[in-house]
Parts: sequence; C-alpha cells; structure tokens
Amino acid sequence: MSERIHAVYLVETALPLAKAAAALAGEQSTGTFVALKEETEGFLTRYAARVEGIEELDTVASPSLPGAAPGDGCYRRARLEISWPLENTGPSLPNLLATIAGNLFELRQFSGLRLEDIRLPTAFARAYPGPQFGVAGTRRLTGVEAGPLLGTIIKPSIGLTPQETAELVATLCAAGIDFIKDDELQSDGPVSPFAERLACVSAAIDRHAQRTGKRVMYAINITGELDDMKRRHDAVLAAGGTCVMVSLNSVGLAGFSALRRHCQLPIHAHRNGFGALTRCPMLGFGYVAWQKIWRLAGADHMHVNGLRNKFYESDASVIASAKACLTPMFPAPEKPCTVMPVVSSGQTALHAHDTCAAIGTDLLFMCGGGIVGHPMGAAAGVAALRQAWTAAMAGEPLNDAAARHPELAAAVEAFG
Amino acid sequence: MSERIHAVYLVETALPLAKAAAALAGEQSTGTFVALKEETEGFLTRYAARVEGIEELDTVASPSLPGAAPGDGCYRRARLEISWPLENTGPSLPNLLATIAGNLFELRQFSGLRLEDIRLPTAFARAYPGPQFGVAGTRRLTGVEAGPLLGTIIKPSIGLTPQETAELVATLCAAGIDFIKDDELQSDGPVSPFAERLACVSAAIDRHAQRTGKRVMYAINITGELDDMKRRHDAVLAAGGTCVMVSLNSVGLAGFSALRRHCQLPIHAHRNGFGALTRCPMLGFGYVAWQKIWRLAGADHMHVNGLRNKFYESDASVIASAKACLTPMFPAPEKPCTVMPVVSSGQTALHAHDTCAAIGTDLLFMCGGGIVGHPMGAAAGVAALRQAWTAAMAGEPLNDAAARHPELAAAVEAFG
Repeated sequence: MSERIHAVYLVETALPLAKAAAALAGEQSTGTFVALKEETEGFLTRYAARVEGIEELDTVASPSLPGAAPGDGCYRRARLEISWPLENTGPSLPNLLATIAGNLFELRQFSGLRLEDIRLPTAFARAYPGPQFGVAGTRRLTGVEAGPLLGTIIKPSIGLTPQETAELVATLCAAGIDFIKDDELQSDGPVSPFAERLACVSAAIDRHAQRTGKRVMYAINITGELDDMKRRHDAVLAAGGTCVMVSLNSVGLAGFSALRRHCQLPIHAHRNGFGALTRCPMLGFGYVAWQKIWRLAGADHMHVNGLRNKFYESDASVIASAKACLTPMFPAPEKPCTVMPVVSSGQTALHAHDTCAAIGTDLLFMCGGGIVGHPMGAAAGVAALRQAWTAAMAGEPLNDAAARHPELAAAVEAFG
Repeated sequence: MSERIHAVYLVETALPLAKAAAALAGEQSTGTFVALKEETEGFLTRYAARVEGIEELDTVASPSLPGAAPGDGCYRRARLEISWPLENTGPSLPNLLATIAGNLFELRQFSGLRLEDIRLPTAFARAYPGPQFGVAGTRRLTGVEAGPLLGTIIKPSIGLTPQETAELVATLCAAGIDFIKDDELQSDGPVSPFAERLACVSAAIDRHAQRTGKRVMYAINITGELDDMKRRHDAVLAAGGTCVMVSLNSVGLAGFSALRRHCQLPIHAHRNGFGALTRCPMLGFGYVAWQKIWRLAGADHMHVNGLRNKFYESDASVIASAKACLTPMFPAPEKPCTVMPVVSSGQTALHAHDTCAAIGTDLLFMCGGGIVGHPMGAAAGVAALRQAWTAAMAGEPLNDAAARHPELAAAVEAFG
C-alpha cells in the first residue's frame, strides 16, 4: 500500500475544477501567504497534497451551500481524489482529521464539499488497535454462531427505574433475545443511576444465564467524561458484563481512543449526532469515510440504520454503510478492522429477507416495537424474527414460512 | 436559573409545527415503542422534554434536506425552544450532546434542523472548569493590557524545519508581534518533530524575552491522542511556554475535557472542521450553541473567522460568533466562562476599524499576509496594524492615521 493518505471528495464549484482542486490541496498542505524562493518550493513539493484524480459529474444551476465564489455561475460537481504524504501527519487520527476534514469545508472555492472515502497507509493499522472483538468476538461472547444477533433497545428512553429496567430485561431474556442495549439518552441520572442499573440488570442476566446457559449481551451506556467511562467500564467488567455502549459524537475521537486502550469489552458504538455531519448531501462526511476512523480507533459494533427505517435515510445508503463495516480496511496480513453493523430503526420480521439479501447475516438486528409490540407477546416477537431470518437464510419466501409459523404469521399481520 | 436545559432550534417541516415539535421532544426524552399504562405515563411526564415555544417564520416550497416526510408539501420554518429536566442527563456535556444534538438531526419529521443556542443550569458551571485563563489571563501572560493582541500564523502550513520555524518566529518577535500560532496541519511529523520545534522556537522566544522583556505567546499545536497531548503540554510548560493549541473537532469533547483538567496553560482552540457542522444553513450547529460547549469544557481562545474573510462566512455571522464568546454563559456569582475570540483569515490593517466597531478590543487579531506581505517588511506590517488599531480605538479615521504613518499608508496601498 502506498505511503500516502488518500481522500475522495464529492465537490461542487463554479470555478474550473482543476483550479478548485489545487486550492483545496494547497490549503490543506503547504499553503502559504507569500511567494517562496525557488529552492524552498522544491523542498515543499515533498509535502504538497497531490490531486490524484478529477471525475467530472453533472452541473447544477444554483449553489448547494452559501458563500461560494460565483465563478462563471455554473456549478460543476465532481469526485476529487487528493493524496498527502503520510509524513505530513504521521499515523495519527486527530492530525489526519485536521488535514482531510479541517478548514476545507469552509473554502469559498466550493459550494459543496463532502468527504466520501479514505484510504490509509498500513502504518495506521499498526498505530491503532482497531476493534478488539468485532464480528467473531461478539459471536463468541453471545454464543450465536451463525445468523444475525437479535437485539432490542430499552424503552422508554428515559423514565424507567433500575428495577423496572431489570424486569424488562428479564422479560426480553426469557423471550430469547441475544442482545439488549440502553437507549443513548440513558446515562447516570437520578432516576436510573448507573451503578444501580448495572447491578439490577446484571442480576437479571445472570439468573437467565444460570437457568439457560445463555448470557445475553447488554450494551450499557457508559458515555460520559473519560474517567467516568473508564470507571463504568471497570464496573461492567467486574459485574460480568460483556459489552459497553458509547455515543461516538458525544465523546469524540481522542476520548474514545483512550477508552479503547483501557477497554476489555466490545464497544457498541452509537452514531447519534452523525446526522448533523451527513444529512446535507453536499457537505460533511459520507458514512463510508466516517466509519473507517472509528473502526481504526476501536469500535466493535457500528450503527448503520435499517432498511425502511423511521429516519430520513435511503435504503441504498444503509446498505452501503453496512457493507462498508464488513469490508476490510487493510489488505492481509494487516488486520482488516471489520466490525459488526448494527441494523436498527423500525425493524420487524418483515425486514429479514431484504436485509439478508442486501447485507448478509453478520449483523446485529435490532427490533423494538417489532418485539414488544408483537400481538402474542415478546417471546413470540423474538420467535417470529428467528423464523423470518431462518427462512431468509434458507431462501424460503416469507409467506411460506409464515404459513408454517403462527408467530411469524402474526408478525406479518401486525407489521405488514 | 431554571433547573432545566433549554435548546433553541431552527427547524423546517411539512408537518404541523406542534406535531413536529412534539415528535422531537418525544424522541429525545421519554420516547417508547408501545402505549404505556396510565400510572407510568404520569411518572414519565417528569422526564419528558417540553416544547417551550414555537416561533413561526417563513415557508419554502421545497425541502432543504432530503428524506423528510412530505406532509402537506409546504415547508414551514420556525424557531423551536425545547427544554429537558437537568436530571435526564445530569451536568454532563457528553450526555447533554446525545440529548440535544443526537438522533434528532435524522428525523423524517424535519427537512431542516439546526441547534442555534442553548441555556444550561448552573450545575454545569459547577461541574465543568470553564476557561482557565480567558481574556484576563491571556492579557496577563502576554503583557498586553489593552487593545487587541496582534498575532500571526506560521506558514507554509507544512514544510518548514524547526530551525526555519524558529528563524521565522525570531523575525516575527522582532517585528513586535504578541502572539504566534502553528498552522493546524503542523503536528509531530518527521519534517518538524514536536520536541525539536518546541526547543527551537522556545529558544527564539526566550532570546527575545531576555532582550526586550516581552514574552511572545506561542500556541504550539499539541493536537493528537490524549497521552500525546498531555506529554506535549508538559513539555511546553517545562520549556516556559505559555500556550497550547488544540483542534477541537479532531480531539472531541471527552478528550478535550480530560486535557483541560490536566492543563496549566491557556488552550487556543482551533475550530477547523466546524464547517462540516455549520455550513448548511438548515442543519447542524450554529456557532453560538457550539462554542458554549467548548467554553464550558475549558477553551481559552476560540476561533471565529474574521470580517471579509477568505472563507464562505458572512460578516454578520462572524460578529455574532465573536460577541457570543464575550457574553457570560451564567449569571453572577457563577463564572461567566467568557473566552477570547480569535479573529483571523485574510485580516489586514484595513480590518481594524470595522472589527473594533463590531467586536471591540478583547480579541486576538491574527494576520498572516497582512504582516509578512507588507511591502516594508514584517516589522512595518505589525506597526501598521498597531497604528490602525490605535486609530480605531481613538475614533480616528483610517486615512487620517495613514496620513501620519508611512507603515499604515503602505498597508492601505498594498491591501486596499
């Protein structure tokens, strides 16, 4: 692999594309105020960012973002690939971000600029730990050898006491779930103090494990300041817990990275807040670029939304995100840093077939209403999901399977 | 002050405003999958977010963001104020972010959603350190009792050796500058290793201090992983340095917060990457909301761009940002958490009068080309800036002052 950092941008500009690309490369590498002596220029070419490619796309009549230079009034879209020598930043993710995703979003030369993908030298794979558990480790800890892990979320988001949460967890365990997560709004408030919630839920999970041999994975939300997260992680570990949840955008890269180096459990990485970085189609970050940063830093599970979700995102975007999580970041023998995509938001048994076809089975399939809202109860809700996924994996149509399984038939009826 | 957290959003929706506002409040507080028993509902109202106000603005014919519910096809803009009980998150900034700036950006109910402002209970002022130096501490360390601090940036961004950097710093010190910062792309690469750059530049600053009694503040870029930042901070402190620079978006909140609690020097907070969060007018964060998070976490200087800057941002936005930095976050006797705004980007002596009129003098005024590009040299560049600011503060028109000062006259000629 090249010893250069590559970034691919979707851009829009009213300037000639080559000129705009050169401005970006200059601003983000060897930019200066005044003309330099010739010998210095020669020296600087070593550190200059390089325009590797310009793929012209369509043009639009009006600018996507405000404040852009008007140029000739015709806004050209293009895909730009820019590269930097590794030595400009070293294998440091925070320094990488300032270089590939820093001031450039504010440049007047562009009326649109979005980081779509990155390719990093293998030095990054050596400098960063990557996921500690990923798909294989998560399967090992949950005992789910094949098929998706079926999960659910504690709701209401805020308002349950630790005892009420534990009762709900016991019900969900009994229903046959593999994975349970806190709502990301749940932290360490007076209605559900972290230590008490951990103790109550752990006891419920332990009882279920003693009875059945199955230890349900509970991603308890440890999001907070670094010392709090470390302390909570240690408490989860001591309680026999097998997962922690962190809101990536709340914590940020350096804090997450420090936690990862301390961490002995899978990190369930919540992406809440990512919408601010991605929902404007001509600004910010595409998920494919964004998730690579967090995988390298050490996330084990990454949220990707779900098909026909309750949010704004298209299915095509969700599928691309999930596939990205499962695609190696580095060629062998470097570690691939693959992570388990978390498929969630309005998912039911009716989503199994197309999710299986589009993404496969190495995923966490999170259902809320699709389980607790099942007309025959939560256990039937989980059973219906397993029936749907078993059918999907065997290539059996949903309705055929529903004809054989009353739980699935009820789910199709209720959620169809 | 109320024990509720308040957030103000600019929104756009094709749904009835009250319905969209209720969806936001539900999603970000007590949202659940299924109807709850009446007694639970009573309990939950304690934790529910509350819609405090809806100020209807204009309507637009097409949605600003993709994927929104089409409603009646008329997209209404409004300013929404939502409040949450402090007990939902406690005084924790990471948990606050997941609540006020989490999943809501992805809601289909909105075709635009931007966090414009926040008001926090005083519990946050007690839980967080805020700026350690701010305006007064920065003035004390630099010996600049009144007027703006005049600063500049090391350029080229990447490519100078530590020795070359130190030579440039010596020139700038001799020119009479108050403040020098690294480019944010500069970190710890092989061409300018941190330790060597610190040693060389510190020696140049020491020599100037010994000769003149004036210690120029050098914001050396310590951005990186947390342990690296702490180690670099300690090295700066040991070398007699008086400032460190951190790229906020590269480091993130929990890492920054951990650094602040370790830090004994002013933190010059660089906002590169903020464009991704703010440039789409109907998405993300306004600076007024965003800067409050970082002030509370402990930034001392915050970048606000400059008037007639080389980036996309309007003067009105820059002025609002700078004024926000200087406006107390909490009423007395709580600490105000005011910070020094850093005015930069294409600034020259011609920007002094309107900057002074709009923002005042408690600011860092950063010029690059406006100093080193001065036709009579860097010393004349700094002299011209002081002449312009002295005139601005005294109410003397720029041209009158230029008539008395050849350096200022040359600046007006060169940059006008």
